Amino acid sequence: MSYTVAGDWGTSNLRLYRIEDGAVVDRAAGPGIGDLGDQTPEQVLRGALARWRATSEPRAIHLCGMVGSRNGWIEIPYVDCPADPAIWAAGSARAMVDRIPVTIGAGLACTRGSGAPDVMRGEETQIFGAMALVPGLAAGRHLIALPGTHSKWATVEDGRVTGFQTFVTGELFALLRRHSTLTRAAADDGAPEDDAIGFDAGLDRISEGGHLLGALFETRAAQLRTGASGRWALGFLSGLVIGAEIAEILPAATGTITLIGDPALADRYNRALAARGLGATVHTGEACALAGLALLETP
Amino acid sequence: MSYTVAGDWGTSNLRLYRIEDGAVVDRAAGPGIGDLGDQTPEQVLRGALARWRATSEPRAIHLCGMVGSRNGWIEIPYVDCPADPAIWAAGSARAMVDRIPVTIGAGLACTRGSGAPDVMRGEETQIFGAMALVPGLAAGRHLIALPGTHSKWATVEDGRVTGFQTFVTGELFALLRRHSTLTRAAADDGAPEDDAIGFDAGLDRISEGGHLLGALFETRAAQLRTGASGRWALGFLSGLVIGAEIAEILPAATGTITLIGDPALADRYNRALAARGLGATVHTGEACALAGLALLETP
Repeated sequence: MSYTVAGDWGTSNLRLYRIEDGAVVDRAAGPGIGDLGDQTPEQVLRGALARWRATSEPRAIHLCGMVGSRNGWIEIPYVDCPADPAIWAAGSARAMVDRIPVTIGAGLACTRGSGAPDVMRGEETQIFGAMALVPGLAAGRHLIALPGTHSKWATVEDGRVTGFQTFVTGELFALLRRHSTLTRAAADDGAPEDDAIGFDAGLDRISEGGHLLGALFETRAAQLRTGASGRWALGFLSGLVIGAEIAEILPAATGTITLIGDPALADRYNRALAARGLGATVHTGEACALAGLALLETP
Repeated sequence: MSYTVAGDWGTSNLRLYRIEDGAVVDRAAGPGIGDLGDQTPEQVLRGALARWRATSEPRAIHLCGMVGSRNGWIEIPYVDCPADPAIWAAGSARAMVDRIPVTIGAGLACTRGSGAPDVMRGEETQIFGAMALVPGLAAGRHLIALPGTHSKWATVEDGRVTGFQTFVTGELFALLRRHSTLTRAAADDGAPEDDAIGFDAGLDRISEGGHLLGALFETRAAQLRTGASGRWALGFLSGLVIGAEIAEILPAATGTITLIGDPALADRYNRALAARGLGATVHTGEACALAGLALLETP
């Protein structure tokens, strides 16, 4: 049966989907752009597609993510905001693998009012995908959040991405957990529920203003002074950084927020948003990525 | 000639001073409490003192810092704030090395109005030392800042330390520089002055509210988008974290601030304070530590 391939190729993972009649019928995986070793992207892609191609060739391949970066396959210029789906799709690049056409989606760039530049590569596909999936996002002003290693908060106005901001929340949490003096990397003392209790305590500790630097050391001081457990400390640290991210976005937050991400992380963000009186609807990253990659199909 | 020994024994270094008639006449060094290996603190101290003791024995030894922590020589309970120099000195612990009396100063603990606990070990000696050195600090309300890996900001009111707050500014900068995706560890491209230009840009970028999480990614985006150099990026990162620390302390800052630290770091803090319309007087950590250790002498 005729099929196309959609793929999300980030720094850490290559995730491929076999699409027949608009539905995912099979999946395949491979190394991320950061883990290619001495193979070229074409070689890695051929390896990951071999099983499907043994029967028949795909009509087309649509990719997004770091595959379009300087260290990827082709460096594709960022598309500047404001950008709607058509402008974004027009910024895609084309390649060929064994005569199969490959389309690689562009990243987005913006410059905030302060003059600060920002970029994304991969998340824009999920954002445009969400706009395609959720009719309510087509008109008016909306915030779309993609929590993660580098959380992205995009503003969508009347069907265009008008700007966005990156928060290094997940990366900061991982660095502090693994390398800092605030927690011990292997600390798993304490009761299982300590993590959630610590998380809520961390949310509570972040002031309306979102001050983080002067709040972090309590992670350690509480272990020294009030007998807090290692599990509590990790939960507290998570509550601090997510709470600070929400506090920083708060001035821009109006109406309902769309969260795109895995359910466990989305649940944490929902708790942090609720603590500020905000609500969110949640969509999975995979559904949004596939809907976004479908926009790259040329008729 | 009769002498005493003053010592600052932190996690990374043991710094010993030979004091005769109130003046430093010689110095010695040894490993920090975190680097004792399989030696006991007494063994390390004997080794570091051997040259001086070859001629004559010190009358007494006065130490401060992590030597008084759980992983040090004797775990000394924290003295709670508010604390004046006499209350603090009374919380010291005594030990003996070969019949030489050793006094180890206590750390301080406080609980802020929010309920957040905080602790210090070593910096209190410099704070009490500054209060002894600077007559103006004896009355009224003052802020004393000790920038560093863990910056401490202490409030002194009428001769007592009434509270303090720890900012993990230096540790965060080191983690982000070494381990994050924001800068490349070995990046030293760019002109020498890029570091100072980046630092000022980082200060500028921190809003009055002190938002840090959403500002950090510009370190990388600027390298991707505006050709910023690696040196600029490190300076920018330094400006962001120091600027955020100052923005967070701003609501508590009134009058002149006393900075205790090495001149290069104090200069950065002075620039960051000046950007907010604040001034500071600077004292070296060594002078303050020695003045504080002198307070532990019993007549």
